[in-house]
Order: sequence, then structure tokens, then C-alpha cells
Amino acid sequence: MTLPTAAAVGIVVDWGTTTLRASLIGPDGATRAAVETPDGIQTVTDRAFEPVLMRALGQWFAACGPLPVTALGMITSRNGWVEVPYVDCPADIPALARGMVERRLRNGSVLRLLPGLRNPAGHPFPDVMRGEETQIVGAGLDRDRVVVLPGTHSKWARVAGGAITGFQTFVTGEVYALLAHHSFIARTSSPLPAGETDWAAFDRGAALAGEAGPQADAFLSLLFGARTGMLDGQLAATAIRDFVSGLVIGHEFRQARACGWFAAGDAALIVGNDGLNQRYARIAPLFGLAASPGPDDAALRGALAIAAAA
Amino acid sequence: MTLPTAAAVGIVVDWGTTTLRASLIGPDGATRAAVETPDGIQTVTDRAFEPVLMRALGQWFAACGPLPVTALGMITSRNGWVEVPYVDCPADIPALARGMVERRLRNGSVLRLLPGLRNPAGHPFPDVMRGEETQIVGAGLDRDRVVVLPGTHSKWARVAGGAITGFQTFVTGEVYALLAHHSFIARTSSPLPAGETDWAAFDRGAALAGEAGPQADAFLSLLFGARTGMLDGQLAATAIRDFVSGLVIGHEFRQARACGWFAAGDAALIVGNDGLNQRYARIAPLFGLAASPGPDDAALRGALAIAAAA
Repeated sequence: MTLPTAAAVGIVVDWGTTTLRASLIGPDGATRAAVETPDGIQTVTDRAFEPVLMRALGQWFAACGPLPVTALGMITSRNGWVEVPYVDCPADIPALARGMVERRLRNGSVLRLLPGLRNPAGHPFPDVMRGEETQIVGAGLDRDRVVVLPGTHSKWARVAGGAITGFQTFVTGEVYALLAHHSFIARTSSPLPAGETDWAAFDRGAALAGEAGPQADAFLSLLFGARTGMLDGQLAATAIRDFVSGLVIGHEFRQARACGWFAAGDAALIVGNDGLNQRYARIAPLFGLAASPGPDDAALRGALAIAAAA
Repeated sequence: MTLPTAAAVGIVVDWGTTTLRASLIGPDGATRAAVETPDGIQTVTDRAFEPVLMRALGQWFAACGPLPVTALGMITSRNGWVEVPYVDCPADIPALARGMVERRLRNGSVLRLLPGLRNPAGHPFPDVMRGEETQIVGAGLDRDRVVVLPGTHSKWARVAGGAITGFQTFVTGEVYALLAHHSFIARTSSPLPAGETDWAAFDRGAALAGEAGPQADAFLSLLFGARTGMLDGQLAATAIRDFVSGLVIGHEFRQARACGWFAAGDAALIVGNDGLNQRYARIAPLFGLAASPGPDDAALRGALAIAAAA
């Protein structure tokens, strides 16, 4: 791949636990080229982050010179390259930009590491995110609204007055994965062919989480429905995982509503690109929440916006 | 070990997924001898249950003749020796006795397999238990009360008019084990020396689950406190697992209360002997529930009571 030097002005690296994603950015902010490697931070030994980064980006540096690199994600955490301190809510773009940490790479490039965000009002302890705040910025701070970021550790965040004013974490994706892969549910369920979803089973689980009345509060009990539904002939083995997925994500909505993140009739933006958004968008109306999708490249947009404000 | 034949009238086998526990019973109902082996049903290959049983009991048969054997636990399930149909609630001792299935062993002994119990009123599907109903019988059906059976899949049951009238399962122990051994909590926490408990951390988790107000309903969010509490310097690595234990068991109480199993000022019996009872008894007062312990040998007592009614 040959690139004219003039065609690129910087690189954005979203470097997480399991994946490194890099984008070469043109002067118009558009992506000129992209790479994705499985070199997540958990695969990096002896803290050899720079060689891994150079291997991923070397071709672009060779073609375009020592472009500045903006990095976000778990690479900025305690287990990453540089632990960038959290910025406290409420935080606008200039505040996040002030929280960046810079390093000089051996090829002369500037490496800017974006900060994570901390919510001092979190219950029971100050809550934290690292990467999602950049996605929220990329989705736009120009409108007051609630932003939902599905994931292993989902986030519900509030944007008001051009700043992220608060957020709350729900470990929904992780709890689902534990149940689906390590529990009694793993042992009695059968996976569908890759890419297939039993939406009827998903809806059934979600509906249980959305029911009025205190029985629906009993999350630890409803989960046993994965077994009793099968014993009673009401859930096929291939339906169980999507039933549980609907139940667990639905309970995130139930709990987020209890915590005041939304009420029936509200609207929210769903941001992320890990395949969960469709599930969240499907459940939202069940709780009277009007959900619309955010941009697919929110992390990239946010990184550019924060870097530009430095 | 030599035993006079006259000293024994039967054998009770509590045969679960991971353990086989057998008791040799005297004419007074007392235990004359006991064995425990790791031959849980999951270790039995090719359905060779009878050879495993004979290996465990052979010495007693040799000494005392072909005593009748009463078996309970997962040995009576679909994955066990004989799938004994569930008896429906409400169920008294004669109803459970009518649900027994008999087999003849090759040595001439009668093998009586106890039934499990089904609650047709379970939500969202009929609930089931297998073994706990025998413990409830052993704890006594003579008084109307609520019985709590802590475990991998905890049960809350109601005894009224000499029968078990209903029950509900909470998968508390399993969710705790998943979190403690496979999740972000497993990676950031350090176990205490075996047998030690950080009761202050346990109480802190339980108190969060017991708080008034909707924030305490957000189970999926409170779990993230295991990480944020450590990041904020408020939870030591060795405190995290007991904090989560208190939070998860506390949430079982919160959810059981929401489902009407008790109200502040009520009393309940806690039955079981798997080491969790102390934790349950410690949390109960936080919810205004007066808890008292059931007999340690409830399963054995129950098996004898049901077998005697046949």
C-alpha cells in the first residue's frame, strides 16, 4: 500500500484488552487506511508496547513520516503503557484534552494518550470508564441526552451543557458471558449456528425483565428460568442463551430506570459497535425508551475532537 | 469395622453431583456409621451407578445383610440413576412417600429413590428442587414457617399445615462462584488464607444490598463496586471476594423480600450444612428477619421420615 505523505495528518489507535485498531487520518478527518490486529494489551509481554505499536504502524510512518498518534482504551490504564489519570465529571472536551499525557516515540512521533473519566458521585464508589468517554464525545456533546454504551461493562451516561455530567456502569456483558459459558446454563444450552439469534427467546427473556411487579426484581431467581423453562418443555436448548441474553440486558434497563437514567417516554442514543447495539435497540421500546443509534466511528471522531482541542 | 447385624435397619444415601454421603441407621434412627466419598454422579461413567454404590456400601451389606437403601439428591435426576418424577406442591410427607420409586439391587436390597418437588406456581416457569424438600421435611413440617436453604441454587420455601406449599430458587451461590473465579473480580482480588473470612468486607457488601432506595436495586451495577472500590483505595484485594459475597447473598434477601417471602419482623429457619449458613444468618437481621438454624442432619431425618411413611 503506497500513501502520499500529504494524504495523512495523524493516526488514532484504539488499543484495548484484546485488539489494536488503528486509523490513518486525512486532513479532512476521514480515515485513509485502517488496520486491526489481535495485539491487545493482554498479549504484550515485558511492557514492550512500543515495538508492538511500531509493527502495526511502521508502514504508515515509513510512507507519511512521524505522524502524531492519539491512543485511547485500556492502553491508558494501569495494565497498559502509561496510566493516564482519570478526569472527573462533569467533563467537557477541553477538560478531557487537558487530561491527555504525551510521550515521544523513538521515531520522533508524538504519542498522545487520552484520559479516562471518573464519576465522583458513583454509588457506592466513584465510577470509572476508559474509552467510552471518547465515544460519547464522538457521538456529540452538543445535545443534552442520555447515551447508552453496551458492552462487557455497559455504561449509561448523561450529556448536558456540552459536558458529560455523570455515568453508571452495569457489568451486564460479563455476567451474561459467565452464565452462557461457565454455568448450569452453559451445560444445558446448545449454541445456535454462528450469527443466528433466536429473537423470540430473546424477547421472552426481555419481557420478563420488563414486567411490572416485584417478581421481575428477582434477577437471581429469574435466571433459574433457563433451567426450569427447559425442564417444563417451554424453552428449547437452542433458545436458552438468547432467553438469558434478553433477561440480563432487560434487567440492565430495569435497573437503569430504577436509578433514574430514564423514564418511559424519554429518548437515548445507543453508541458502540460490538454487535450488542441491536439487542439494546430492541429492548428499549419495551421500557418506553426511544433509542436511536450513534455513529459507528464514535471513538475515532471523539479522539480527533479531543486531540484537536489540546 | 465390625458391626452387629442387629445394630442397623437401613442406609440413607445422599448422592449429589460431587459427593456420595451414606449413613448406616440404627433402629432408633441414629447414625451407626457414615462414609463420604468423592463419587458424585458426575464422576460415574457408563451409568455404572450400582457398582459405585456397592463399593461404598459393600462393607455394611457384608456385615448387616441386604438392608434397604433410601437415596436422595441428584442421583434421582435426569443425569442420575433413575429419574424420579417431581411431586407437586403443596406436598406433605405421605405425598412425597407416594412419589418414591423402588428398584431391587443385585444383592437383594430394596433401593428407594426419593422424589424431587415441583412448584407449579413458580414464575416464570414451574420451579423445581431435588433433595432440599427432604431437608425441609427433616427440619420439621409441624410448624408453619419459612425455610431458607442456602446453596449453589438457594431455595426459599414455605411450610404450612404440615405441607411444603411453595418455594422459589435463587442461583446465588452459582453467580458468586462465577464472579469470584472467572470474572474481572477473579483477576483483581486475592483470596484470604483458607477458612478466613473478611467479615467487615462481607458486611459492607451486604449493607449495600440492604439499603433503602432504588440504587440498591441495581445489582448489575453494584457488582462493579468490586473494581471501583479497589481503584478508589476503599477495598483491599483480599477484601473483594467477601464484599461480593455479602452483596450477592444480600441481594438474594432483597429479592426474596420483594417476592413476599418475608417482611421485617418475620422469622425463618436456615437449613443446610455447606458452610453458607453462617453468612445467611449474619445477613438476616439486616433485613429484620429473625433466623434460627435447623438441624445439621435434616436430609437424613427427612429421608427416614419419608421412607417410614411408605
